[in-house]
Amino acid sequence: MKKTIIFCITAFLCLLVSGSIIARDFQSIKLPPHDFKKGKMPKELTVTQALWARESTKSFKDQDLDPGDISNILWAAVGVNRIITATDGTITRKLTIPLARNQQHVSVYAVLKQGVYLYDFINNELNLVLAGDHRSETTTGQAYVYDAPLDLIFVSDLSKLSFVTGPELYYTAAISIGCAIQNVYLYVAGTQRLGAVCRTSIDTKLWAEYLGLSDNQMIMGTQTVGYPAD
Amino acid sequence: MKKTIIFCITAFLCLLVSGSIIARDFQSIKLPPHDFKKGKMPKELTVTQALWARESTKSFKDQDLDPGDISNILWAAVGVNRIITATDGTITRKLTIPLARNQQHVSVYAVLKQGVYLYDFINNELNLVLAGDHRSETTTGQAYVYDAPLDLIFVSDLSKLSFVTGPELYYTAAISIGCAIQNVYLYVAGTQRLGAVCRTSIDTKLWAEYLGLSDNQMIMGTQTVGYPAD
Repeated sequence: MKKTIIFCITAFLCLLVSGSIIARDFQSIKLPPHDFKKGKMPKELTVTQALWARESTKSFKDQDLDPGDISNILWAAVGVNRIITATDGTITRKLTIPLARNQQHVSVYAVLKQGVYLYDFINNELNLVLAGDHRSETTTGQAYVYDAPLDLIFVSDLSKLSFVTGPELYYTAAISIGCAIQNVYLYVAGTQRLGAVCRTSIDTKLWAEYLGLSDNQMIMGTQTVGYPAD
Repeated sequence: MKKTIIFCITAFLCLLVSGSIIARDFQSIKLPPHDFKKGKMPKELTVTQALWARESTKSFKDQDLDPGDISNILWAAVGVNRIITATDGTITRKLTIPLARNQQHVSVYAVLKQGVYLYDFINNELNLVLAGDHRSETTTGQAYVYDAPLDLIFVSDLSKLSFVTGPELYYTAAISIGCAIQNVYLYVAGTQRLGAVCRTSIDTKLWAEYLGLSDNQMIMGTQTVGYPAD
């Protein structure tokens, strides 16, 4: 009996250490609501002030982001800002970025210390894709990324844009992603506390595997966010 | 003598009507300064409020924009927001949008009632490229564009991004253009008076000719700006 108890405890501890239970803890992160007084953030800059302040930060503190900031950053990138109900009751969610024919082809992944998550913009939550700290793998050598708490990875599902071909396919997709990236730049500039830098320096082959992307899904950019180093 | 005077007046009037003198009048438009109290615009929304308000406007009033708004819109798109002087005295202008390796590959053209202009972001002025009203030609059929006072055309000089190839060339270029487009979206949302819509529906062959583009310069998008119809 005593042996059985010890075995059970040992087995439980092994599972815990192996990460499968830890991973389960982090499987889904419900983010705090992003609609603080419908956008009236304390001490936030106006659009034009944020445009003056926009820059690429290339040195970060090793300091975690508040869940509220993570929520705001993801919502700024590709959040729902309007829900339109047609006369027949059909609901259309419109986002903070423009999309050709409202084809919601953009996915955003959040790479945090705890793991890699896919942002669910409908439920404002993060769903685990890969456990563990993979932040330093989001760059192909830009060391200033390593300390930052958050890397975003922007993916387009090109199969949703089959009405365009050739170079137009890529630039139509990337314009929406550029809009998401600029939303994050201006959000962080507006806070007067955070910084960001967008990059295309990412091992797209490795990350397509990590994220389990289909052949139609293309990684088009990444953006590092955190507290600027002094 | 009398005949000579009449001939001269007639010749002058012909020149005037043909547009060559009229065009000269509009050759360069010096825009008003865009740095109103370094970005403190009256009644302007904060970034997050503007993100909530961002949408694509698809119906415009036939009403001209103030020169101040034209200036702000173009500066928001691709304006200089920082001038960095190196220890050796070299000056680097940094823009409101991110650019890979700071390669300033993006040109913005303003299509106004008076003509088509290239935005000179260093001197904040518009230089005439083509006289006459060509606004309705910026679309391949979206009639809601016709009444709007301003269409922007975004061009990338791909020869400045020769360090990337294939699809990456197009999406690297288009991410910067998407950032410029989103700056305009958020600027107009912030004013609470203006609206905008971005489109890829443009006859790129016709406009490459109109603008005198090289083979390396690619039109990647257009954006219509004006007062939303009631």
